[in-house]
Amino acid sequence: MTDFPIVGLDTPVLEAARLLADQDLPGLIVVDADGLPFTILPGTQVLRLAVPGYCQDDPALARVVDEAHADLFLRAIDGRTVREAMPKRQRELPVTDLDATVLELAALMARTHSPLVAIVAGGRLHGAVTLQALLDRVVQA
Amino acid sequence: MTDFPIVGLDTPVLEAARLLADQDLPGLIVVDADGLPFTILPGTQVLRLAVPGYCQDDPALARVVDEAHADLFLRAIDGRTVREAMPKRQRELPVTDLDATVLELAALMARTHSPLVAIVAGGRLHGAVTLQALLDRVVQA
Repeated sequence: MTDFPIVGLDTPVLEAARLLADQDLPGLIVVDADGLPFTILPGTQVLRLAVPGYCQDDPALARVVDEAHADLFLRAIDGRTVREAMPKRQRELPVTDLDATVLELAALMARTHSPLVAIVAGGRLHGAVTLQALLDRVVQA
Repeated sequence: MTDFPIVGLDTPVLEAARLLADQDLPGLIVVDADGLPFTILPGTQVLRLAVPGYCQDDPALARVVDEAHADLFLRAIDGRTVREAMPKRQRELPVTDLDATVLELAALMARTHSPLVAIVAGGRLHGAVTLQALLDRVVQA
């Protein structure tokens, strides 16, 4: 388990994207007002916010947009907050406690398709376990 | 786009897991006999193979297994190949060509929930674009 940067629901998406990029994170822990995990947001879903709606499901449209307009990206996320990147349906969250076994963490990551599990105990967020850290532990054992 | 390690359907899962761990990869490109992407396997799904079936969907069972038995992991994947980690239903693959725009890559990653896109052109695999590389490109622009 390691400390893990967190973002709030009102964190600007641009700041969240920079955090992902700068620290090579597999995703983000989004906390609520009490500092507890509201959701775990995989990197690909942060990206989703930067893709204009009209390109979302249409590869042909996304292709027509000039490569030079990578700054479209920055404009698209300008002023948007993490709240808008929330998945519509809340599924099982990759959150567990300090007693989780290696096997339990692996099963949770596999089941939720999340390379990141938040550790909560005693009413507070203790940190996170990443897929990389777990793999390092088990395959180098 | 960067070179990206590949694995075959007959690559041992242990070797694939070590590759993920050692090179901090977000996933693996699994190629067929022609060297073309057969599928893109996110890291969490490689992990799935290491979780015994009886623990897969039952956190309580996974918890009962003694922490000390992290080597259960290695035993579970011993002798298994990447072929067995294949998703049952094949959905849209995160594969595109050399003309893909930044926006197209982002839309593809968001839609397929894959932090890794394979680039194929002229009948061969050219490399891959990772979420990290894409984010570096757009947020530092």
